[in-house]
Amino acid sequence: MEEKEIIGEIAKRVEETVRLGVKEEDAGKVVKKVSAAGAPSKKIDLVAEDVAIAVVRENGNRYNVLSEEIGFVDNGAEETIVLDPVDGTYDAISGITFYSVSIAIGKKRLSDVRYGLVRNLCTSDEYIAEKGKGAYFNGKRIKTEKYHGEESIISVYLSRYSHPKTYEIIKRARRARALGCSSLEMCLVACGKLDLFYQRGQKVRVTDIAASTLIVREAGGEVFDAETGNKLELEITLDDRANVAAVGDERTIKEFALF
Amino acid sequence: MEEKEIIGEIAKRVEETVRLGVKEEDAGKVVKKVSAAGAPSKKIDLVAEDVAIAVVRENGNRYNVLSEEIGFVDNGAEETIVLDPVDGTYDAISGITFYSVSIAIGKKRLSDVRYGLVRNLCTSDEYIAEKGKGAYFNGKRIKTEKYHGEESIISVYLSRYSHPKTYEIIKRARRARALGCSSLEMCLVACGKLDLFYQRGQKVRVTDIAASTLIVREAGGEVFDAETGNKLELEITLDDRANVAAVGDERTIKEFALF
Repeated sequence: MEEKEIIGEIAKRVEETVRLGVKEEDAGKVVKKVSAAGAPSKKIDLVAEDVAIAVVRENGNRYNVLSEEIGFVDNGAEETIVLDPVDGTYDAISGITFYSVSIAIGKKRLSDVRYGLVRNLCTSDEYIAEKGKGAYFNGKRIKTEKYHGEESIISVYLSRYSHPKTYEIIKRARRARALGCSSLEMCLVACGKLDLFYQRGQKVRVTDIAASTLIVREAGGEVFDAETGNKLELEITLDDRANVAAVGDERTIKEFALF
Repeated sequence: MEEKEIIGEIAKRVEETVRLGVKEEDAGKVVKKVSAAGAPSKKIDLVAEDVAIAVVRENGNRYNVLSEEIGFVDNGAEETIVLDPVDGTYDAISGITFYSVSIAIGKKRLSDVRYGLVRNLCTSDEYIAEKGKGAYFNGKRIKTEKYHGEESIISVYLSRYSHPKTYEIIKRARRARALGCSSLEMCLVACGKLDLFYQRGQKVRVTDIAASTLIVREAGGEVFDAETGNKLELEITLDDRANVAAVGDERTIKEFALF
């Protein structure tokens, strides 16, 4: 298979698996107390990861794999598939129909990721970017939009662990959402449907946002470290984590007093 | 057609229409500056409403209709179909895959609603309740769950118009969402997937929540006026509006200091 076919095949097979899996009573059951990333693994995550790794193996293990449950799979390759088999696991097992698979190809760090795909597992909608070649939604070129002013819309990470700044930001928005799937939320920034995605208080891993960071940047937006205001960089490992602010138009930084 | 078939037919026909409609460039275009409810009407809302009213007409206009865009359609019937053709219009036109059609049958007020259906227009999942006969998700009986304690999850209305109490509530939750579709958010309370749905600052209309209020109550939960703490009551008219707090377990009232 060609490279793009391999990535597309992972996305499709994960979707088939998750569609069947979320209907099972035990989809949300914790089956491993500590994953490679240090959090409890739910059955649906493990099953989806197994399927993705099988596709890589069937195609000659041409890539290493970094994934949240299994950690780093060293196939002696130069490049690594950075995978989140189910971004938004809680949504998936709760009837909140907003979760995805996220797949990227990179080497050492976020800035050298050269291909990214995010697929909405409820609708099969697909966001893809290739470094230097733009970003696409279902095959159609996407670009970010200018800040929407009075009609601004944002999405945030929300819980008792949210950074207090989150609340200040919400108070400036016309509409706000908290959707629980950072990769898809960032794709909505890339499409111009959100002015801002802001996650501070619960840090993201490179597995969550490797693909969507490339998609936002190739669509004309930018992704920042929400604490420092620097352009986001992360090592391709599960140990490195960051707070994130993704914008379509940099005017949003000033309007929401982000940094 | 039997009554339940009529309601089911409305849901299916609206879904087909909206599935095609949201892909069109002008789905979110404002085509009427002031609807019956006083807000701007978007094309997708009007098209979906037309389809629903056609189904009622094809079946002999056995009900009046109350709907957000057209207002009250008096067919000289004793009962009224209380309709929100697209709850979550902003989500529908923005790639946020969480929006519904909500349909109920009642007479004068929320408390006499005797049948309700909410259908997720992205997945075809259907929540139904009949007064005194329980609530169902895709044909399977649902009941609310006990308050989840440390693992509590809630959904709220969020924007610059949110009541400040909203932020206090979020700070007590393990996870929080803001999903933008009150009827579906309330159905997740009915299923035990959310402990609380809280919308204060932007009031809901009876068209949004006639069906989901019955679904929550028939599943064992309760729906309150978020300001007064009284059990929610609304007239079946577009003029009456309320803030809403829906809970699966009344312990949630104390844990989140709701009233």
